[in-house]
Parts: sequence; structure tokens; C-alpha cells
Amino acid sequence: MKTTVLRLGHRPQRDKRLSSHLLLAARAFGASGAFYAGTRDPGLDESVRKIVRDWGGDFSVEYAANWRRVVRDWEGGVVHLTMYGLPVQDMVQEIGASEGPLLVVVGGPKVPGDMWGLADWNVSVTLQPHSEVSALAVFLHMLHGGSELSLEHPGARLRIVPSARGKELTVSKD
Amino acid sequence: MKTTVLRLGHRPQRDKRLSSHLLLAARAFGASGAFYAGTRDPGLDESVRKIVRDWGGDFSVEYAANWRRVVRDWEGGVVHLTMYGLPVQDMVQEIGASEGPLLVVVGGPKVPGDMWGLADWNVSVTLQPHSEVSALAVFLHMLHGGSELSLEHPGARLRIVPSARGKELTVSKD
Repeated sequence: MKTTVLRLGHRPQRDKRLSSHLLLAARAFGASGAFYAGTRDPGLDESVRKIVRDWGGDFSVEYAANWRRVVRDWEGGVVHLTMYGLPVQDMVQEIGASEGPLLVVVGGPKVPGDMWGLADWNVSVTLQPHSEVSALAVFLHMLHGGSELSLEHPGARLRIVPSARGKELTVSKD
Repeated sequence: MKTTVLRLGHRPQRDKRLSSHLLLAARAFGASGAFYAGTRDPGLDESVRKIVRDWGGDFSVEYAANWRRVVRDWEGGVVHLTMYGLPVQDMVQEIGASEGPLLVVVGGPKVPGDMWGLADWNVSVTLQPHSEVSALAVFLHMLHGGSELSLEHPGARLRIVPSARGKELTVSKD
């Protein structure tokens, strides 16, 4: 299932590392790209582009100046991850069976109230406070049934050789 | 399986929100407590204690002045989450079948090299760069087989009522 992530409310000073972790988790757990809304942040774009150059695949990040338009114009299902939603374990099968590409919306601390109405599904990953990074990763892991764990990223310059005791990395010449 | 998390290399200025998200993910995904190493940070302790007061359970956080001693003296298995390790999908069954409480070690960017030798298992969650928050959450989710998604936290003052379209919260009087 083709999935794209929309991160709401990015603030460059306060959220730089969290948003970067969130976008890298989106990529590692099989999303094909992401939008972010809030304040435009060339440093965030660049940090993700650098990872893609080194680690392969074609994950792309785009700034959404008008995130409501991204959501309204989306030609597929829209799931909003919120701790107030319906339990992921009850919803993931229905979401996975839906038509078209999926947009997964994750907030920062203050998500505008209309988001709940714009989503096809409001879904919670546990009913506890934790992190948009963990909520997104576990949601994508459940959606993809674990297949994302062995995903290949074509064109990688760096590849890890799994190791019981050390760090082993192969580097391809460009 | 009783699990405790050890977060290495915390830096109060740079990591405050990431470490807070990491510890809350540990709690939400079923760990019973956590240690953190690096620089002592009363603000981090307090932010987690506040969550536990409101949301229940007895998850505790403790500063580890000597994290190597915590690892060496641990009476059970020690798993180290690292992108260089063996794939989680190949290791989680063996780890889940091991005796005694489990210590799950997660690093920041620079983990001292001796950690690889101190661990019983070095395990990777995807072989891609993402986040210690997502790595920990997906590892605990796989270890607990999803049972953590409906975990109850006794004594909660705040509880979410799952909702398709809004925010519903019950507040208990103390």
C-alpha cells in the first residue's frame, strides 16, 4: 500500500530533531514520501535528502503551505493518528483494505480541531501519551504487516551488513 | 516479559524532548521502568513522573551514574538496539523466550564501542537510519506481540474514551 505522511505544525527551533526522526521513521517503515506543514525549514528538507542520497530509495519531502488542501485533495484514504482515536488494532485491517494511496497525518502537540472531521479514520496507537514518532512507526509496521523490516532501498551508497557483535558497513563508489 | 529500558548519552539541552518521547514510548509499549545515563536532568524525571501521576501505572525513571554497572549487574538478558545489529524479525522469538527480566539499551548518536560486547543481543529494527523512539516502540510491540496496545495502567486519573470523531477524556477525582 502506497503511503505518504503529513506532519502538522513543524517549528524549526523546537521540533527540528523530532521532525527529522519522524520523517526518517516514515521512510524506514515504508512510506514513499512526506509533507510537512507549519514553518518552512530548509534544514529539515536537506537532512532528509542527505539520508536518501546515502541510504537509497526515492523518499521525498515537500513543504505544504496549505495542509488542508493536501488533505482535501487527497485521492485515497486519510488516517489521522491521535491518542483520542479508535484503537489501531481494531482499525488497521479496514484501513489496509481501502482503495488508493493512504495519507497518514501526524500532529505536533496542538492539532486544529477540524482535522478530526477531515480524516476518514482517527486512530490511536495505545490510548496513552507517548510520541508521534513511535505512533507512526508502529502504525506503519502494523499496516505493512512487518514486510517493511526487510525493505530494500535501491541505489543506496551505504548498506549495513547485519552483525551480532560490531558495525559493518559497505560503501559503494558513486 | 518484564522489560526495563536504559537510555544512553542523554544531554539535557539537545535531547530533552527526544528522551522524554523515548521514555513515554517505553511506558506506553509496556516497559516497567527506565534508566537514563549521560547528564542528570531533573526536568526529564519530573516530566515523566507527571505523566505517570495522570495516566497511571508505576513506570519509574532512575538516573544511572554508572550505566556499565547497570548492564553488567543485570540479572537477565540485555538487548542493545543498534542499526548495525541482527534483524529484529530473526531475533525477537529467541529474546522473548529468554529467562528473567530484559534490559533494552538504546543509544543516542554515539554509543561507546564496548556496548556491543556487553549485550547478549545486538538487534536492528530495519537496517536504516531512523530514531531510537521508533526502534524501541516497534521492538517492544514485537516482543509483546501487540498485547501492549490494550494495556491498562492502574490508578489513572485521566483516561481516554476511544472516539471516531473527537476528543473524549474522563477525569477521576483524586
